[in-house]
Amino acid sequence: MVAKQLEGKFLSASIMQQVKKDISCFPSPPRLVSLLIGSDSGALSYAKIQESACKAVGILFELVKFPASTSQEEAIDYIVKLNNDPNVTGIMVFVPVPDHIDKNSLIASISHLKDVEGISPTNMGKLFYDNSSIVPCTPKAVMLLIKSIDYDLAGKEVVVISRSPIIGQPLLLMLLESTNKSPTPTCCHIATQNLALHTKRADVVIVAAGKANLIHGEMLKEGAVVIDVGINLVEKEQNGKKSRLIVGDVHYDSAMNVASWLTPVPGGVGLVTTAVLLQNVSLLAKQHFARLES
Amino acid sequence: MVAKQLEGKFLSASIMQQVKKDISCFPSPPRLVSLLIGSDSGALSYAKIQESACKAVGILFELVKFPASTSQEEAIDYIVKLNNDPNVTGIMVFVPVPDHIDKNSLIASISHLKDVEGISPTNMGKLFYDNSSIVPCTPKAVMLLIKSIDYDLAGKEVVVISRSPIIGQPLLLMLLESTNKSPTPTCCHIATQNLALHTKRADVVIVAAGKANLIHGEMLKEGAVVIDVGINLVEKEQNGKKSRLIVGDVHYDSAMNVASWLTPVPGGVGLVTTAVLLQNVSLLAKQHFARLES
Repeated sequence: MVAKQLEGKFLSASIMQQVKKDISCFPSPPRLVSLLIGSDSGALSYAKIQESACKAVGILFELVKFPASTSQEEAIDYIVKLNNDPNVTGIMVFVPVPDHIDKNSLIASISHLKDVEGISPTNMGKLFYDNSSIVPCTPKAVMLLIKSIDYDLAGKEVVVISRSPIIGQPLLLMLLESTNKSPTPTCCHIATQNLALHTKRADVVIVAAGKANLIHGEMLKEGAVVIDVGINLVEKEQNGKKSRLIVGDVHYDSAMNVASWLTPVPGGVGLVTTAVLLQNVSLLAKQHFARLES
Repeated sequence: MVAKQLEGKFLSASIMQQVKKDISCFPSPPRLVSLLIGSDSGALSYAKIQESACKAVGILFELVKFPASTSQEEAIDYIVKLNNDPNVTGIMVFVPVPDHIDKNSLIASISHLKDVEGISPTNMGKLFYDNSSIVPCTPKAVMLLIKSIDYDLAGKEVVVISRSPIIGQPLLLMLLESTNKSPTPTCCHIATQNLALHTKRADVVIVAAGKANLIHGEMLKEGAVVIDVGINLVEKEQNGKKSRLIVGDVHYDSAMNVASWLTPVPGGVGLVTTAVLLQNVSLLAKQHFARLES
């Protein structure tokens, strides 16, 4: 079997098109403020991607840079100001933050009404009860990608490799959303004793471990759907020349020979995640303008 | 192997003793208001258990009964009144509620500051980030029971049979709390294709399916720890006489021959769940009195 590529570009484009259309009906453009504390290069590249995506759909994007020496109190004070600013419709904080700052405290200080990443405790708590509108972007992107190929998850064995509170854990809850049509999810992570035993029996493997080549073809069941959330920067040497490239957590070539579908990295989950973020920005802005009017 | 009984009475008594001690230092006793809409017999028996447990530790317990014809709006209005009443420190709603009422809307209307069951979206959302103090009672009771036998969950295979938003789903998150010492949890439910395949490979089986005798000894791995959350009322005929008795989801006799530990029903998880509820009442009352003082 040679897997089909489950690309993110079509899904991402269709989400962005809808977001652009919705935004064109708003009284004014949404305004997203993204905080970057320190100067992490990964965060900076992501900020650039975000800026251009925002521009494409009509969202005002503002990157506010704080020096790495910023205290947690200063950062939270600034977030509280943004919470109360009627001209700001969305807020997010880039990770990583410097070691002396507790990331979770920053997240908890963002009003759930402006939490475009869908990761504030109040928005996350809604995941237990219904298909809340503002949900974490990456797991939502994974669910949309699976839906985009009309894959029926009912009763399937799904192995999620991530216990992250913003990827693996909310993904488990999203997978369990339906009363009768849920798959049986297993959550693997660094302490899992025999990872291959789990991936080998899985109809769907979703991996977000941040470890290049963690999943090889021989660890997969024939025909599995494989969703690669990993983004890893690796060095490659070819003809004596060194170069850096981005790869996922899945060993692409070997997995392509076993899986039925495989998301590429880059060009898979990441693209859809950005589109879902814009969707959240738009939804929160819509609610924001409705509150201002009422 | 003959399993040891993992009884709830010792753990429950020790929690209640601590709660009683804590409450004795409060400026006044906590006051828990429990709403019962309709006249479900199960809820009524549970209310009686709760009343006597509250009395034992010094909590004022008030059962407010509404007729089954109560509208959702009336119920929510009443909850909002309780939210604003400085003399009320805790609120809960008995289930089931009549069909015309959306249970989740009632739960969402309870202030997270008085949510003694730990099931409001805001309290549930904290489960993603840390060991929040106010958590759903049944999964917390399960975790405490496992801890009480010094069982090391790190890397173990845990099968949870429940996708309920107040049992199975929060339990998954609690199991995944630790960075390096989490087990590998799988969530089985009604749509799971081969339940026995999962229970047979599990080091720990936690079942809350509400189905008597769902789990038999031959479905278990030798030496498994088995936590039975089910409470089922069944009819039994002995010597021509019919009687009703309470059983769990596990076929007790056959499981006792295979498991290493097994919680009895009644006398297992249920007892500890009630104690955890009192613990939540006490914690929220403590915070309530602190707010009044400040």
